[in-house]
Amino acid sequence: MALGDRIDINGAEVERLILELGAIGAHSGTGVWRTVYSPEWRAANALFSRWCREAGLAVSSDAVGNVWAKLPGNEKGKSIVSGSHMDTQKPGGRYDGALGVLAALIAIRALKEKYGCPKRTLEAVSLCEEEGSRFPTANFWGSRAITGCIAPSEIDSVRGFDGESITDAMRTVGLNPVRIPEARRDDIDTFLELHIEQGPVLEQAGLPVAVVDAITGIRHTEVTLTGVQNHAGAFPMDLRNDPMAGFAEIASGVIDHAHRMGRPAVTTIGRCSPWPNAPAVIPGSVTFTIDARHPDPEKRRAMYASQEELMREVATRRGLQLQIHDRIDHEPCLSDPDLINTIQRAAEAQGVKTLTMASGAGHDSQQMAAIAKVAMIFVRSKDGRSHTPEEYSSIEDIVDGIRVLAGALHKLAY
Amino acid sequence: MALGDRIDINGAEVERLILELGAIGAHSGTGVWRTVYSPEWRAANALFSRWCREAGLAVSSDAVGNVWAKLPGNEKGKSIVSGSHMDTQKPGGRYDGALGVLAALIAIRALKEKYGCPKRTLEAVSLCEEEGSRFPTANFWGSRAITGCIAPSEIDSVRGFDGESITDAMRTVGLNPVRIPEARRDDIDTFLELHIEQGPVLEQAGLPVAVVDAITGIRHTEVTLTGVQNHAGAFPMDLRNDPMAGFAEIASGVIDHAHRMGRPAVTTIGRCSPWPNAPAVIPGSVTFTIDARHPDPEKRRAMYASQEELMREVATRRGLQLQIHDRIDHEPCLSDPDLINTIQRAAEAQGVKTLTMASGAGHDSQQMAAIAKVAMIFVRSKDGRSHTPEEYSSIEDIVDGIRVLAGALHKLAY
Repeated sequence: MALGDRIDINGAEVERLILELGAIGAHSGTGVWRTVYSPEWRAANALFSRWCREAGLAVSSDAVGNVWAKLPGNEKGKSIVSGSHMDTQKPGGRYDGALGVLAALIAIRALKEKYGCPKRTLEAVSLCEEEGSRFPTANFWGSRAITGCIAPSEIDSVRGFDGESITDAMRTVGLNPVRIPEARRDDIDTFLELHIEQGPVLEQAGLPVAVVDAITGIRHTEVTLTGVQNHAGAFPMDLRNDPMAGFAEIASGVIDHAHRMGRPAVTTIGRCSPWPNAPAVIPGSVTFTIDARHPDPEKRRAMYASQEELMREVATRRGLQLQIHDRIDHEPCLSDPDLINTIQRAAEAQGVKTLTMASGAGHDSQQMAAIAKVAMIFVRSKDGRSHTPEEYSSIEDIVDGIRVLAGALHKLAY
Repeated sequence: MALGDRIDINGAEVERLILELGAIGAHSGTGVWRTVYSPEWRAANALFSRWCREAGLAVSSDAVGNVWAKLPGNEKGKSIVSGSHMDTQKPGGRYDGALGVLAALIAIRALKEKYGCPKRTLEAVSLCEEEGSRFPTANFWGSRAITGCIAPSEIDSVRGFDGESITDAMRTVGLNPVRIPEARRDDIDTFLELHIEQGPVLEQAGLPVAVVDAITGIRHTEVTLTGVQNHAGAFPMDLRNDPMAGFAEIASGVIDHAHRMGRPAVTTIGRCSPWPNAPAVIPGSVTFTIDARHPDPEKRRAMYASQEELMREVATRRGLQLQIHDRIDHEPCLSDPDLINTIQRAAEAQGVKTLTMASGAGHDSQQMAAIAKVAMIFVRSKDGRSHTPEEYSSIEDIVDGIRVLAGALHKLAY
């Protein structure tokens, strides 16, 4: 690395910002409870705005409460944007979302200090909502507003777990839901999101940072196997139509299949509800979910075809009725190849060792891909944990991640 | 068959009694809702008592409300008793329990009419409670009173689903719980119970009646597999400790094992509760039940040992914690060999084709075995159904069953 290319980031300062932001909505020790449009969310965005202004960035808030901090470029052209979401799980930790917001500010501030005014406009963004933790169907509210993907009907239909409307919640923080379409942007060239990995891949590989080449494709399927409910003692095994036996065979089959496909294929059976769920009754039905993900579009389709073939074969052989409903079916979101290359070269230039991997979780970047080139940078998660107060990434790893981010933004904007 | 040995039973009369008794507590069309100590239960026992008196039997009620109808023998010795329980599921059908009560009356009345006074005393009994449908821990309240197996503490501890005490319920029908020990009998030689099969074995074999040589042994085990809860997308398959994968393997294994052992081994997984039961979360734990039954004491033990070995092997291999709690563990109840032989000879003498099988369900007979020789007679169940208004046995099959019962009682008492 040429000595002049090295972007230095002050770890102590990074830690101070993380802890100060994480103190807003602090919960369960090291956790944070900061749902969209809550007083804590408002306070956190106010603090972020202050820091951005102190860094000499031009701060504005859009119609859904996304906060933008701009460092104008001296050439025309679409913006280079970095950021993530400010809301959390209930409770989440200090890093999921917030780290990407702070990283954007810290990286842009460091570039401004080291290199001055960029050619291309740089922006840091605090997206208002990604987790669905207050309004379960709102997910990606912030990035969907930016991409124009919030349907007009959602103003009425999006409701909180306790029934409150998102409209009322927006008005509480001074936002007018009628103006949501005004949040749309068509002037973003690139969206680059830093995020904690939320999995154990980097930790297992002994590396601090990853370049994300895709956000995985996902299907949530709800399956019901219906057999014949009968007395657990009086019905011989050979005369049963036992949906639990069919479920067990299918669960083993789809889990083993993903395992044999190898990384990054994953399949999870998270829910299982036999009916009537009594110890001495052969169940009449078993309803369960399959969450199956693969970032390769063709392998994803092949995976689902294999699962469906197994389910049909088991159901037919065991005399069970099979109902399959897809609840979610999202295509993979592939990162921009040039952008991947830019990040990899930036990491090399900063002397940060990385691996390249797919994200198994969903992120705002997959929404932003509708209007911009996207890619992500992952920072190692301790024990692969997230969505819990125990989530943790070391300051050393975080600094490495921010240096890679800053290096990439430098290549894109200067 | 010698013509004089044939015991004739009037099918139309049998049907009349079944329908008249089934009208008390009629529910959901052909169903019956008649829990212990309810007004319907009281009315049904009053009707049964009237029929017994009309048949010239001496009727009495004991301290828990079992109704006894006696045809005294002209020789000394312990009684030969037949009967079953008068209570039902909520709702059950017209046959489970009630048929055995009526069959005892009809058989003894037929013997009295054909052969007069017996040598040994014959008794028909309407047992007050077997189903646990009003007081879940009361099960076998009637037969446990007769055998002296109701613990004094149960007067306080046995509570209904809505919290009511069995003491209050007994007082409502004029019974004094303090007198429960007086229901104990030590003068019963043989207890012979006719019951619907509640399974499909006779139907599949094309036979009306079975001789029951054992009531199966049963173990209810509650098992918890604990792994590591994680994000369904971000955790590679090869790094998971997924209790659902372990559960599926164990469920398939124990179900298949019972199937391969062959009849009458049965194993049922009736309950399964993953935690937190969310589609996109690898469960942290899965709790499930295993109901496993075999009437052969040695094969039963071997079956359980095989299940435990599988569970330990799977848990160890998958890095899961395993907790096993036995909730119920009942040894098989073997029928008296001479009594089996007597019933088989009676069936031959009556020209009724039978098979000999174990009962996979529990019955009052297994309690009565503590004080008397026991065996049972099963009558074919349509589609193997029970504990539902749809349970049904044809009058032709019921008449065959009662003729076998009467023939056996004749051999024992005359």
